[in-house]
Amino acid sequence: MIPIPAKVIPREGTFTLDAGTSIHASEELRVLAESLRDTLRPATGFPFPINSATGTSRVELALDARAQGNDGYALSIRPQVARIAAFSPVGVFQGMQTLRQLFPAAIYRRAPVSGVTWTAPCADIADVPRFGWRGCHVDVARHFMPKEWILKHLDLLAMHKLNVFHWHLTDDQGWRLEIKRYPKLTEVGAWRSDTMLGPPTKDPAKRRFTGKPHGGFYTQDDVREVVRYAADRFITVVPEIEMPGHSRAAIAAYPDLGNDIDKTAVGTWWGIYDKGAVFGVDDKVFRFLEGVLEEVLELFPSTFIHVGGDEVRKNEWRESKAAQTRLKSLGLKDEDALQSWFIKHFDTWLAAKGRRLVGWDEILEGGLAAGATVMSWRGEDGGVAAAKAGHDVVMAPQKPTYFDHYQAKNDREPIAIGGHNSLSDVYAYEPVPRALKAAEAAHVLGAQAQLWTEFMPDPRHVEYMTWPRLCAMAEVLWSPTETRNYDGFKARLRMHLERLRALDVNFRPLDE
Amino acid sequence: MIPIPAKVIPREGTFTLDAGTSIHASEELRVLAESLRDTLRPATGFPFPINSATGTSRVELALDARAQGNDGYALSIRPQVARIAAFSPVGVFQGMQTLRQLFPAAIYRRAPVSGVTWTAPCADIADVPRFGWRGCHVDVARHFMPKEWILKHLDLLAMHKLNVFHWHLTDDQGWRLEIKRYPKLTEVGAWRSDTMLGPPTKDPAKRRFTGKPHGGFYTQDDVREVVRYAADRFITVVPEIEMPGHSRAAIAAYPDLGNDIDKTAVGTWWGIYDKGAVFGVDDKVFRFLEGVLEEVLELFPSTFIHVGGDEVRKNEWRESKAAQTRLKSLGLKDEDALQSWFIKHFDTWLAAKGRRLVGWDEILEGGLAAGATVMSWRGEDGGVAAAKAGHDVVMAPQKPTYFDHYQAKNDREPIAIGGHNSLSDVYAYEPVPRALKAAEAAHVLGAQAQLWTEFMPDPRHVEYMTWPRLCAMAEVLWSPTETRNYDGFKARLRMHLERLRALDVNFRPLDE
Repeated sequence: MIPIPAKVIPREGTFTLDAGTSIHASEELRVLAESLRDTLRPATGFPFPINSATGTSRVELALDARAQGNDGYALSIRPQVARIAAFSPVGVFQGMQTLRQLFPAAIYRRAPVSGVTWTAPCADIADVPRFGWRGCHVDVARHFMPKEWILKHLDLLAMHKLNVFHWHLTDDQGWRLEIKRYPKLTEVGAWRSDTMLGPPTKDPAKRRFTGKPHGGFYTQDDVREVVRYAADRFITVVPEIEMPGHSRAAIAAYPDLGNDIDKTAVGTWWGIYDKGAVFGVDDKVFRFLEGVLEEVLELFPSTFIHVGGDEVRKNEWRESKAAQTRLKSLGLKDEDALQSWFIKHFDTWLAAKGRRLVGWDEILEGGLAAGATVMSWRGEDGGVAAAKAGHDVVMAPQKPTYFDHYQAKNDREPIAIGGHNSLSDVYAYEPVPRALKAAEAAHVLGAQAQLWTEFMPDPRHVEYMTWPRLCAMAEVLWSPTETRNYDGFKARLRMHLERLRALDVNFRPLDE
Repeated sequence: MIPIPAKVIPREGTFTLDAGTSIHASEELRVLAESLRDTLRPATGFPFPINSATGTSRVELALDARAQGNDGYALSIRPQVARIAAFSPVGVFQGMQTLRQLFPAAIYRRAPVSGVTWTAPCADIADVPRFGWRGCHVDVARHFMPKEWILKHLDLLAMHKLNVFHWHLTDDQGWRLEIKRYPKLTEVGAWRSDTMLGPPTKDPAKRRFTGKPHGGFYTQDDVREVVRYAADRFITVVPEIEMPGHSRAAIAAYPDLGNDIDKTAVGTWWGIYDKGAVFGVDDKVFRFLEGVLEEVLELFPSTFIHVGGDEVRKNEWRESKAAQTRLKSLGLKDEDALQSWFIKHFDTWLAAKGRRLVGWDEILEGGLAAGATVMSWRGEDGGVAAAKAGHDVVMAPQKPTYFDHYQAKNDREPIAIGGHNSLSDVYAYEPVPRALKAAEAAHVLGAQAQLWTEFMPDPRHVEYMTWPRLCAMAEVLWSPTETRNYDGFKARLRMHLERLRALDVNFRPLDE
């Protein structure tokens, strides 16, 4: 299985799903029993009645106060009974993912498969995740990814016991979230006139373009569907609304949110814009962002709300009379302090509403907001500094968690943004920086993979960059360090890819 | 609803789905009851127990020998009971599609939606399809479409009461079906080095290319999944294996199947190739194609097997010594007669195995094979000639069933192959040619839409070209002529597009 459980004791015999298999669960686990039925029924064609008195074999789901907490579960498989017991429903759900993987890979197909005997080896499994934040980030601003693919991706995250979907919804090249109070954010901000092609270049003269408009956005109904679909799979959706930088799409929609901007357009090329991409520091900007965030909080129950904070070209504030006036009136030292003041405002604002702010590690510059959690992307230093200062940290260092980097050094890979993070690099990753002492390390909530989509124009390309590296990441985040063994992982991965194949995931084949 | 039922009598009151609603069915309809439960449960979150004795309201599925045959059904909706009765399971299934459309459009979402009351208006509906062949063709050779999208497309066909999926699996630019005996068909034939971009041109010097390889194929396990998924929705999958022309991908894999070919490559541009795209007329070609078809027959239970037959550049045979020798030894008049002889061989071969050959209307040239069914694409003439000669016919005329043509005359539409078939053109289509007398018209099995994908690089582009035109086509094929009313259709379509929106279908918005 992937990720490998903490402890597996093989037992004699096999358990077989057949037309007589039923599912048993108490009323509080009824929905999970239905969910298990819905995942086992398509490929097998068996009805899996719930709590049926008759039946030759059974799958039991049970809550057990004595069971491992922290989202863990115990799975016992005997010839007549497969039993998942856990402290809480989330543990039961994780056990269901393990159980499903014990059957032949064809169990993941969506119509009855004939000629397969649906057996799983008997065993006792005790399992518990290493980290609480097991995430995957997807940038849908650079290239819009349709809702149906988001749902597919959530299914795959759940299968791999990942539990955070970080949804990067806004950026210079697109605003993807319907906001009722500000309809132009999607009327204008969700569409761009053109899109830069690879290879990446900083020379404007060398940029090549598709010549086609691109865009799309999620309605609030779509978002509610995604959030609920994720919640039913015990995945938290963390929305990201970028501020104060990477905001060109919003400023294209509402130019007076920028710094001395009359008019600008949604970005068409990749890179950081020198002008028109950073919010001003006016009160009206704050009111606007609060208005946006009020709708965001209604849509997303997540405790954590991501506000970006990365790659702000502070020249925009340096060159703006209004920003300089504000800076001086606040008695601030410099533009770093101004950004810190900006982020602190929203840290306080979110905290008052029972939420927590998370941002990229640049939010450390100029002084970290009191309640902020840091997502460490420029290496580990930001994470180390924040954890040492007593802040929570999510690790997302470019090496090796940026899955927009190349997977192999050959000339056959599709154009990527640069860099190189191989499958083995990801598998070897240790999320807790060595520089941290044990007490500080407790601030490392976990880590996540990043899928920036500048050079991933469609879902199947995203899948190619995601899989199987995310299999490795899932194991890093779930399984105990002592189970880590790359050869063993690769052997299991070979079987696991058959599951992904059944699910029509466009994974990168292994180098053989 | 779309397609509109033959007869609808509104009644007082509403039927409401709630947590107490159960589904009732006899054992022979048990699988349909489960399928209904699986489609109603995601959005409502209700459990819909099957044959539960308790419950406040119920959906009943019943076979009724007195009911309308020919895939029809009766649907009676009263405040406590919604009842679907039909002569056969397929009719029950069609009634389920109607019932689902009577609830709010959010019923098509995949996670529980809050704040919606799931009511349907009371009514008596009596319904029966006009044609038995209600089809949609998809070319996956020009651009490969992933299996998961094929499954989505099948769901949409079922929703629109379409029942034939014509899967165009092979062509000059790609071979998409795994054949165990001939592995190179997919190892070589499923991949091409480049792909022509629009706009279409016949001038080789003006062709523009993506510069990227393209390809993909379906494993036999994938095909079995698709065929079974379709069958569970009462859709027949008609595979198309092109012969003797449009065969460049196969000849690239096995050059000795061609006419004096040493080596060729899978096609990269759109159009008809002058050389290397037509099978030879050797015995070894027949044995090869029989080998392919033997595996095809194992995979596809469809009575009809499509063998293409269109656009054969007969110069290949004219210039081949071997072909000319064969022609003379058979005492045939010309190359048309040679093609006719080729097709007749497979007509006989398929008939001996209990199947029926269907081909594009060029199979009329040189004399139609005894058992052949003609798919009339170059206007109606081929269909008329075949029906008058007592052959069955499927209508697929370019105007208006070729959905690769433009939907509107403006400069904002994505590049298409040319031509123009608007939504109203499709809605106004009459599948039975006027030239046919009543007895001859009985040979018109039905009609289908064609999705040739030269200029549709991905699934979302295909959806844009498909919807809502296929909604119009579905109504043409299902509903009685006397219900046809374009204004009424457009009013219903506006609501129907909300359903497609919930399903994340990238339809072309209506011109308002």
